[in-house]
Amino acid sequence: MCELLAMSANVPTDICFSFTGFLHRGGGTGPHRDGWGIAFYEAGGYRDFRDPHPSVRSPIARLICDYPIKSHIAISHIRQANVGGVRLANTHPFTREMWGRTWCYAHNGQLAGWEALPLGVYRPVGDTDSEHAFCWLLDQLRQRFPERPSNDDARQQLWRWLHRLCERLRGFGVFNLLLADGDYLYTFCSTKLVHITRRAPFGKAALSDAELTVNFAEHTTPNDIVSVVATEPLTCNESWLAMRPGELLVWRLGEIVARYDEEGHG
Amino acid sequence: MCELLAMSANVPTDICFSFTGFLHRGGGTGPHRDGWGIAFYEAGGYRDFRDPHPSVRSPIARLICDYPIKSHIAISHIRQANVGGVRLANTHPFTREMWGRTWCYAHNGQLAGWEALPLGVYRPVGDTDSEHAFCWLLDQLRQRFPERPSNDDARQQLWRWLHRLCERLRGFGVFNLLLADGDYLYTFCSTKLVHITRRAPFGKAALSDAELTVNFAEHTTPNDIVSVVATEPLTCNESWLAMRPGELLVWRLGEIVARYDEEGHG
Repeated sequence: MCELLAMSANVPTDICFSFTGFLHRGGGTGPHRDGWGIAFYEAGGYRDFRDPHPSVRSPIARLICDYPIKSHIAISHIRQANVGGVRLANTHPFTREMWGRTWCYAHNGQLAGWEALPLGVYRPVGDTDSEHAFCWLLDQLRQRFPERPSNDDARQQLWRWLHRLCERLRGFGVFNLLLADGDYLYTFCSTKLVHITRRAPFGKAALSDAELTVNFAEHTTPNDIVSVVATEPLTCNESWLAMRPGELLVWRLGEIVARYDEEGHG
Repeated sequence: MCELLAMSANVPTDICFSFTGFLHRGGGTGPHRDGWGIAFYEAGGYRDFRDPHPSVRSPIARLICDYPIKSHIAISHIRQANVGGVRLANTHPFTREMWGRTWCYAHNGQLAGWEALPLGVYRPVGDTDSEHAFCWLLDQLRQRFPERPSNDDARQQLWRWLHRLCERLRGFGVFNLLLADGDYLYTFCSTKLVHITRRAPFGKAALSDAELTVNFAEHTTPNDIVSVVATEPLTCNESWLAMRPGELLVWRLGEIVARYDEEGHG
């Protein structure tokens, strides 16, 4: 199993604390030695850092911990390879441009029969089930919505369609998803995703995987809202909420703005 | 004027020496303070590092110097903003996927009337003339070649078409180009691009912009072929060749494999 980590916040926030715990799972406390990546949507654009080596020994991972990049949305992934060799082209997160936005995607799980998903505009560069599913997903969105939805009604139609597509992919196996377009973070649970929203009054948090405690009150202002989504809880002294299988959450500025469940209710 | 740097090599080679001199131009010896980026095609895939801050002070740039990434093709760009604000979305190199390959692009120069270039599948994320021209260029290639050319004849047709598209863009202003697809590096000269090919017997080279000398003989094997393309010569004790305006060079494994000139001769 790979590990997923995402953040949505209403102010540019660094993910160093969560990422420090998270990357210990990449060959440290966890078995995920087959590469890692992290993507940031900053005010001025998008960038990602990927490395096909274990995260605990990666100088690039150390840079990310030491050089706080502040973003509204971040997505990270630690890989344990199943489909596709250990190489950079198979290292999440994957990105494609659609509607003049950079879309970022990370997947946890394994699909069966994914080769049958038809491809259109987007083609995989590597050879993983994950990237193939991403290309299919974006193409399906694009076919239904040739232009970017520009009002609330159209956005909700888009999200409902995204939920149906995720449900279809769940039919192929395990499909825990992190997806973002710079404005919204989408998280879909197939088997395992938990989340936490931190807001005033802020308290202390202690990492489960490393000896590190942070007092968020010292690093925040009273209006900050910061949510973190992960495969497993990253802290040992806070209550994380579990997503339900078949559930899609749409996040914006640290808060859930839409929720679609197994029965298709929005 | 921005500054361009590219490398094509027949063995995975780090670009640290050239990049060290190059990045001094980003707010050091040069006026290019508006961000920088570097992209690597490694055996296993593609990755890039971009920063909207001056390269001389960038911790990410320091990492690139200290942590040698070995690649067959690298492309780098230091920006002096003219069209589009100083932000990450406007920071070269730009990338898009076409035919299941990651295409990487960096541009030096300024275009006039570029807004009229019609867009198709690819849309700009930022607001530069450079990215708009890239989206147009890829879409034009894709329209003419829906699938990736798979033999020499088709490839030469592609390159000839690419040369014609570059010539059209040169009609809009200054268009010095670095473009790559992982196999081939394409360099098009509108006003200024120079290149050098290093092979056995290797000698010493001294940077023009920083106090650094390297003896390539100590870092190479007799079969290595490494070519560097840049806006200006990076070393002060070697002979760099100037490209001609309107010339497209196609590089593979450190050598020029095709050349198209102003009259359209291949």
